[in-house]
Amino acid sequence: MFTIGVLASGKGSNLGAIINHVKSGFLKIKIGVVISDNPDAFALEIARANGIEARYIEPGRYRTILDPEQEKKYVSCLREHGVELVCLAGFMRIIKKPFFDAFEGRIINIHPSLLPSFPGLEAWKQAIDHGVKFSGCTVHFVDQGIDTGPIILQAVVPVLEDDTPERLHLRIQEKEHIIYPLAIKLISEQKIRIEKRRVLIDEY
Amino acid sequence: MFTIGVLASGKGSNLGAIINHVKSGFLKIKIGVVISDNPDAFALEIARANGIEARYIEPGRYRTILDPEQEKKYVSCLREHGVELVCLAGFMRIIKKPFFDAFEGRIINIHPSLLPSFPGLEAWKQAIDHGVKFSGCTVHFVDQGIDTGPIILQAVVPVLEDDTPERLHLRIQEKEHIIYPLAIKLISEQKIRIEKRRVLIDEY
Repeated sequence: MFTIGVLASGKGSNLGAIINHVKSGFLKIKIGVVISDNPDAFALEIARANGIEARYIEPGRYRTILDPEQEKKYVSCLREHGVELVCLAGFMRIIKKPFFDAFEGRIINIHPSLLPSFPGLEAWKQAIDHGVKFSGCTVHFVDQGIDTGPIILQAVVPVLEDDTPERLHLRIQEKEHIIYPLAIKLISEQKIRIEKRRVLIDEY
Repeated sequence: MFTIGVLASGKGSNLGAIINHVKSGFLKIKIGVVISDNPDAFALEIARANGIEARYIEPGRYRTILDPEQEKKYVSCLREHGVELVCLAGFMRIIKKPFFDAFEGRIINIHPSLLPSFPGLEAWKQAIDHGVKFSGCTVHFVDQGIDTGPIILQAVVPVLEDDTPERLHLRIQEKEHIIYPLAIKLISEQKIRIEKRRVLIDEY
């Protein structure tokens, strides 16, 4: 069965959504392993509670990237578990070239804005501060830029007059939990083609 | 009556939409003058055909800005006609500081993307090439950046799998013709407040 690995640093709400869609039968995939750079990530608990292999792998001495030696362990662990697609789900570190090369074209991420608007951290807060009337979320392939890879799916969320960053973030997450599992389904069923940087989807 | 001036370089489809909304009574404003930097702009013909003062004012020797001496004539002409709000509608030149200062906070523009994505030229083509799944249009106050001012209204347009830049542009324009007159209405009725760079709209 098509096997994914999930990398998460935090509470794992997207992991939870993916698991629910596996249970419902919408996703016919296996979650081979969940890895975190944070030993206290709730994502690891969610994985264990659902009988999924959960690993904490030390990130090393840096804050925004994995220590190169440690990054190798991430790659080995994913390979050991037969991972065909790496899904970043609130993973707070940038993937460097060796990891990227090991899974080129097979790493995806979910970002809480309508990219290319608001890449980087706290995109929902950026959206509020900028005063946009619509934001949303984006599933994209990971390339070596920050939130710059080809876009697989997006969903739109209106920004309300009285929105706070927190409220907007919650409404964006509801859409994330729909489009991230859908993107994984499309990839697992080989329904996606890339032309230049446009991602085209066969009928589903 | 609240008086606007329209600056247009091209075919004037947004001018046409504004005129239609004046005729229908949706907009209770006067279009004091339409000015173009292009003597052959169809926008001038539309204005004349509707009994609106239409002026060609030579832009001068530059391509992307108005010659400073000529820019003064634009400002004088707008003042002569009692213009309270300057509406850029496909005006292909950047407003410089003296013009900007003369109408500060009273210049608006319509841009064919969901800003801050895709500022600048041919935003619909940028959207197709980038592979976004949604684009749209934005009415914003003009500041000294390029398409960076506070956002008044936006509308979303899905990008279809088989879209060409031209087809997407046409669907975006349909939305422009709705939100640009609406933004003018809100400003003319003083229903807009700016907090930092968020534009808040009183109930309408």
